[in-house]
Amino acid sequence: MKKSINIISKFKLFSDYWSPRVIAELNNYQIKLVKIKGNFIWHQHKETDELFLVIEGSMGIQFKDGTVFLNEGEIFVVKKSREHKPFATEECKVMIIEPKGVINTGEKKCDSTFKNDLWV
Amino acid sequence: MKKSINIISKFKLFSDYWSPRVIAELNNYQIKLVKIKGNFIWHQHKETDELFLVIEGSMGIQFKDGTVFLNEGEIFVVKKSREHKPFATEECKVMIIEPKGVINTGEKKCDSTFKNDLWV
Repeated sequence: MKKSINIISKFKLFSDYWSPRVIAELNNYQIKLVKIKGNFIWHQHKETDELFLVIEGSMGIQFKDGTVFLNEGEIFVVKKSREHKPFATEECKVMIIEPKGVINTGEKKCDSTFKNDLWV
Repeated sequence: MKKSINIISKFKLFSDYWSPRVIAELNNYQIKLVKIKGNFIWHQHKETDELFLVIEGSMGIQFKDGTVFLNEGEIFVVKKSREHKPFATEECKVMIIEPKGVINTGEKKCDSTFKNDLWV
């Protein structure tokens, strides 16, 4: 019998930033946890929307035409093809939901590109 | 510029049990909030998995071969076609993620069937 997945307990198992870990799958979607701090790169996902839910802390998502701020318990869905740049002044714990196979840096492969399908 | 969605604020806007409200869409998936108390009916979703995330309180999901308990901040994904019966002794606030168009009572249309696409 599978047990429920405790989000906070899972976050205790890793400490690197901008390195999403998978905790569950929903059909062909993955539920990922990521710790972020500082600035990520500008990128987009041409094939899919991307959901952000802040579990602890606060973050922002910069767009070409403005910035969205998220505090704990807040959600934002970045629509597909929309260029965005996530950032956080202090460490922020975030849940991301998107289809399996999405690359964290979108179209750009670079130093910030993290491997997929790393479970925690 | 769209703003982030505050989960707790959204929960304050309705009070009926077992009546999911949509707060966001992610591609063809919907993010729903539902308040539950008491026992739901046995049902299944033949075409899709279903994700439960407890936002406040605690709940259980009964299966034919056992029961899973979820506390605040815990997730469980019910795999497709698996018969299940959610329940909560006290009021519990839950986020559900599943594809658009899923009927809350699965195959069975009955008094517990709630209308789809009701946003809050």
